[in-house]
Amino acid sequence: MSKQPPHPALLIPGPIEFDDAVLDAMSHYSESHVGQPFVNTFSEVLAMLRKLFQTTDPASQPIVLSGSGTLGWDQVAANLVEPGEEALVLHTGYFADSFADCFETYGVKATQLKAPIGERPQLDEIEEALKEKKYKVLTVTHVDTSTGVLSELKALSELVHKVSPETLVVVDGVCSVGCEEIRFDDWGLDVVLTASQKAIGCPAGLSILMVSGRAIEVFKARKTRPTSYFGSWKNWLPIMQNYEAKKPSYFATPSPQLIHALHTSLSQILSRPLEQRFADHRATSQKIKKAITELGLKQLASKPENQANGMTAIYLPEGITPPQVLPSLMKKGVIFAGGLHKEIATKYVRFGHMGVSVTDPRRSDIDTAIEALKEGLIEVGYKKA
Amino acid sequence: MSKQPPHPALLIPGPIEFDDAVLDAMSHYSESHVGQPFVNTFSEVLAMLRKLFQTTDPASQPIVLSGSGTLGWDQVAANLVEPGEEALVLHTGYFADSFADCFETYGVKATQLKAPIGERPQLDEIEEALKEKKYKVLTVTHVDTSTGVLSELKALSELVHKVSPETLVVVDGVCSVGCEEIRFDDWGLDVVLTASQKAIGCPAGLSILMVSGRAIEVFKARKTRPTSYFGSWKNWLPIMQNYEAKKPSYFATPSPQLIHALHTSLSQILSRPLEQRFADHRATSQKIKKAITELGLKQLASKPENQANGMTAIYLPEGITPPQVLPSLMKKGVIFAGGLHKEIATKYVRFGHMGVSVTDPRRSDIDTAIEALKEGLIEVGYKKA
Repeated sequence: MSKQPPHPALLIPGPIEFDDAVLDAMSHYSESHVGQPFVNTFSEVLAMLRKLFQTTDPASQPIVLSGSGTLGWDQVAANLVEPGEEALVLHTGYFADSFADCFETYGVKATQLKAPIGERPQLDEIEEALKEKKYKVLTVTHVDTSTGVLSELKALSELVHKVSPETLVVVDGVCSVGCEEIRFDDWGLDVVLTASQKAIGCPAGLSILMVSGRAIEVFKARKTRPTSYFGSWKNWLPIMQNYEAKKPSYFATPSPQLIHALHTSLSQILSRPLEQRFADHRATSQKIKKAITELGLKQLASKPENQANGMTAIYLPEGITPPQVLPSLMKKGVIFAGGLHKEIATKYVRFGHMGVSVTDPRRSDIDTAIEALKEGLIEVGYKKA
Repeated sequence: MSKQPPHPALLIPGPIEFDDAVLDAMSHYSESHVGQPFVNTFSEVLAMLRKLFQTTDPASQPIVLSGSGTLGWDQVAANLVEPGEEALVLHTGYFADSFADCFETYGVKATQLKAPIGERPQLDEIEEALKEKKYKVLTVTHVDTSTGVLSELKALSELVHKVSPETLVVVDGVCSVGCEEIRFDDWGLDVVLTASQKAIGCPAGLSILMVSGRAIEVFKARKTRPTSYFGSWKNWLPIMQNYEAKKPSYFATPSPQLIHALHTSLSQILSRPLEQRFADHRATSQKIKKAITELGLKQLASKPENQANGMTAIYLPEGITPPQVLPSLMKKGVIFAGGLHKEIATKYVRFGHMGVSVTDPRRSDIDTAIEALKEGLIEVGYKKA
């Protein structure tokens, strides 16, 4: 069994620290991608994803492809929307700009509804936008990794179903699945897309989606063929259905090692009630946000209800920049990320608090990081006002 | 260090058996995708790929993305050809049909030049086709995994450069890079695309390409934007150039663990002269093909010059099917693949002989497999005529 060598705690908003057993699964001996043992493993992964996303509707379909989280955007743009159709993109940071750019690549018109940095579009603005035009999909970034702003899914989805019932509700859950509550069926979501390397706790390399039966019907009713080949659900839906039914099947070769690692991380997550997992992330997030406030620092996310539970974007004190403070943290064994939102990238840092760093009581990553931030800021000349 | 548990030898035409050190690298502790240690590793991987593809032209560009080998087709179709343009697809098996389908997805007209099963299109036919119409790209499957037919690249590329000098030469090297000689510069190739899990000897999950300076100029001269987002070279070329220059850079999150494993497998490959590696694969292939002939069996690939050196597709004796013989091999600790070419899938099996099973003198996979095939056929009633 692998025992990880000493290394700085990776506390960026993904990739995160991984459990030993997950990393062990990465070095699984080679298996045939169409052999029964691997197909059984893939089948169990898909079944576990249903539990993670809290869907029991047999019409829902989990999809796992080799790729980055970004490939989830391509899957939505190439399968659910046809060229010339419209998407409404709710903007809470960098990743909405990119998702909109992805839509445009596929000939889909993307309209962004932007909020000021640290805020999220309000329901009344969204209602107004939905009434103005017919949108095939609405997209929302559940947690924007560039700002740490948390969007509200339940009320949003209710609004969309009420005001524009044909519009599909698409959630970018790259930085939320596994640490923020998501009730796929109860909230009437159509797509939640994510990646393996954040709160799911498996190394990067997998694009993971849950798609509703309603979205699959919309896909099947396309007048034009999907506009991606590798990301085409025409190619992948039969494969995923076969995998889940434990039937060997081939379109493109999956990564058996990454699927084994995902199997291990999902098994660990589901070994405890999901409610408890989300509560742990909330409690740790509260502790971090309290410490940051006590340090006299502000977050990008403006108020408690729009602050993510798996990461915190922290404004640095006036005159202190990420290139000053990050190396100081690194010396104390902690890696934070710099800013990503281009308008203010030099003014803030990002602290990821997801997965084993939060849930494993044997780890002291979070306390070490809070202490390192306090000391690191003092070292670079910060005095609390 | 991982010591793999006992398991059947995976001798399908990819994924292949992996070296312990490569699997160990898969369980590397978590690193930031924009941290200097990981960026340095990625940089070295790109430099090693230049050596593997035998290119010293600084205008060439290696690209490594998270994905399956199939994603390489999307990259070609979405970046090098514009909607309405034409591709000539040389057909030696299943994978040409799929590559053509990929082109059509992106609005590119694909004309297939087909050879009978076990053959490859002849140079005079190709010359005729090139003179009939202007093709933006010509694609050739170096080794078609469904048939084991080897294409000849050097003379083909010379022909294209002579007859239709503006046509880009695109090689699907998924089942050839690392076991068949490829001289990217000397042979005037424009793209060679491959995947990690075959003769490169790294677990699946990476799409790997080498692109010529000429192809990059053609890409830059596009009139329309690339028709993929995740596979767009507009998004990825600056990132790959930054990685190679050891500058942190971000478009989508790569898989640090897979990149570490690729680093290990490439280091192993390049620790010996490439000539020797190719000679080893040729010698092992000859030994296997001789044994098969002695068993009274025929290959799909019709003659020595079109037979791959990293795999052998073997017709089963009349009346014996893959579902009879494969379980018998499995009991003897050997996994072969069934047929894949849809017209004759039930009539043949495929034996992959790439990577450590060939090059590691401590392994007896190949001899075990030859023996298992002999005994397995006898068990299911085969008597040599």
